[in-house]
Amino acid sequence: MLDGFLLEQTRRAEEIGPRYSTLWERLRRNASGGKRLRPVLVLAAYEAFGGTDLDTAARVGAAFELLHTALILHDDVIDRDFVRRGTPNLSGEYRDIAHTAGIPLPHAEHRGASAAVIAGDLALTAALTIVPRDRMSPETYDRIQGVLDDAVFRSAAGELLDIEYTLGPDIPSIDDVLHMERLKTAVYSFEAPLRAGAVLAGAQKEALSALEGFGHNIGVAYQIVDDLLGVYGDEKQTGKSIIGDLREGKRTVLIAYAATTPGWAAIAPFIGREDLSESQAAWLRQALENAGARGFAEALARQCANTAWSYLASPALPDTVRDEFKSIVVDVLERVR
Amino acid sequence: MLDGFLLEQTRRAEEIGPRYSTLWERLRRNASGGKRLRPVLVLAAYEAFGGTDLDTAARVGAAFELLHTALILHDDVIDRDFVRRGTPNLSGEYRDIAHTAGIPLPHAEHRGASAAVIAGDLALTAALTIVPRDRMSPETYDRIQGVLDDAVFRSAAGELLDIEYTLGPDIPSIDDVLHMERLKTAVYSFEAPLRAGAVLAGAQKEALSALEGFGHNIGVAYQIVDDLLGVYGDEKQTGKSIIGDLREGKRTVLIAYAATTPGWAAIAPFIGREDLSESQAAWLRQALENAGARGFAEALARQCANTAWSYLASPALPDTVRDEFKSIVVDVLERVR
Repeated sequence: MLDGFLLEQTRRAEEIGPRYSTLWERLRRNASGGKRLRPVLVLAAYEAFGGTDLDTAARVGAAFELLHTALILHDDVIDRDFVRRGTPNLSGEYRDIAHTAGIPLPHAEHRGASAAVIAGDLALTAALTIVPRDRMSPETYDRIQGVLDDAVFRSAAGELLDIEYTLGPDIPSIDDVLHMERLKTAVYSFEAPLRAGAVLAGAQKEALSALEGFGHNIGVAYQIVDDLLGVYGDEKQTGKSIIGDLREGKRTVLIAYAATTPGWAAIAPFIGREDLSESQAAWLRQALENAGARGFAEALARQCANTAWSYLASPALPDTVRDEFKSIVVDVLERVR
Repeated sequence: MLDGFLLEQTRRAEEIGPRYSTLWERLRRNASGGKRLRPVLVLAAYEAFGGTDLDTAARVGAAFELLHTALILHDDVIDRDFVRRGTPNLSGEYRDIAHTAGIPLPHAEHRGASAAVIAGDLALTAALTIVPRDRMSPETYDRIQGVLDDAVFRSAAGELLDIEYTLGPDIPSIDDVLHMERLKTAVYSFEAPLRAGAVLAGAQKEALSALEGFGHNIGVAYQIVDDLLGVYGDEKQTGKSIIGDLREGKRTVLIAYAATTPGWAAIAPFIGREDLSESQAAWLRQALENAGARGFAEALARQCANTAWSYLASPALPDTVRDEFKSIVVDVLERVR
């Protein structure tokens, strides 16, 4: 579905010229692969509530995948990342081509980031226009567009808080970090796709509210696991550097917890050092663990996942929901094992 | 209309927190002021074709103003501009606050640019969701959304070409520059708003096609005038630097023309020099004029405006169109006087 749409856009871009269709081609490659978590969630919720028009549900799923693509592209610009899952991302591809052509690195990097700003705008526009209005009632269409709009609104807030927390001298509280992570990731990755799938299938208010409780908690659990993998993960398995977050001084649950412990005085000077060495990072990982931050984060992730699970016991939800969602909970928790 | 919408969004952001409502407040200030060219064009076309629901037309106009805000925010990130019309833009405000708080300038600049990436995403999302579906037929709604989608699609292509032309060693042809400028500016600033206003008022195919000819040509004239003002303008009047384009090596009609003349050999080494001095710039302005570039661009702008005007003679257009649009043509041409 999504790939077909992006191929169509690439062909549309060919009418303008080869440079533009190349951008779409790269955008298509950036959007392909991955676990398609968000479309899976749209579909799971849709089917759990008895929906049968899978083609329409797939288009709504594609909207969330495109939103994810857009947010990742712009997040990489903000984080100055040129690599994702071990290979150059769209900025990285444009940077490398420019650099190979003799353009000095800072200019080449800026060119890469500029292309990613444009590509992100295109993906965002596609996300907001791909839901097929003529295949649902006007009310359902408006509600799904509202869910998408709200997802952008909240993830933008989370992204802003993430930047401001990381740049500021103070360490935010654990609650502030959780709130930020919910806004930045949980809403658009879990709450919104689940809600959109359920709304499309005609789920009622009580069901939507139980689903929101599930989505919120499983989304936060997912994000805490992500923070853990950013420090203690297996780079080969996750494709995610385990030194980047420390060098950047990212305000994660690990850091927010450690800042409340006596071990913090020794840890603090190393957080956010761009020149952090591998051996200093290894020392930091151990120090954070000794301070109890790793154990705290792992316990909190499990607790959030359990809370998420308990929302599924709501009588407003059909039994099929529990069957559909069990594997989601298991998958989130298994990432840290 | 637009200001009310942005105030509403600012209040909605307050529920999330003060940092986020501050971003919306700044976005609102960035979007206010200006000539509101695009809403004016939507309304002019709408009224020329007999439309009477001015409130709905104003919301469609707001969509284009928000699109303009989004594209300007992201264009400033791409051009690394922190000032617009003599005052700090949104990136500039965020940069200055961070820098005053002791954050080193490169980091503060990146923070400013990051905030502008986020704000641009919010403005783009607003542009694509503000058209009121319930106040027009489903067909009209789809067509107007299609016009907006196409405007994003083409302006992204223009922005990409602008970056690639400027970074590349070759000077594109005059036709390539005109094509790029049409994509980057004329479509979303002229063709699309005029088309959207006319579609909303129920204009027929022949009328839309004549309007497109007008919009295309007046939009290109506008952009050529903009290129002229970027080198020969009165900074106090335009608020636009007259050295920036030369330092950046921007591929404008002036440069594309000059590259075809014998004077080019002397001019070329100075185009795109980041350290270009004021006196070198003064010399360049004169050299471009001596090469005939200034005269060529002025004549081309006039010619495009005349072509635009001739499209308005189409029998498919009501007389009211000519009355409504005369001042637009005059305004575009008067900017270079």
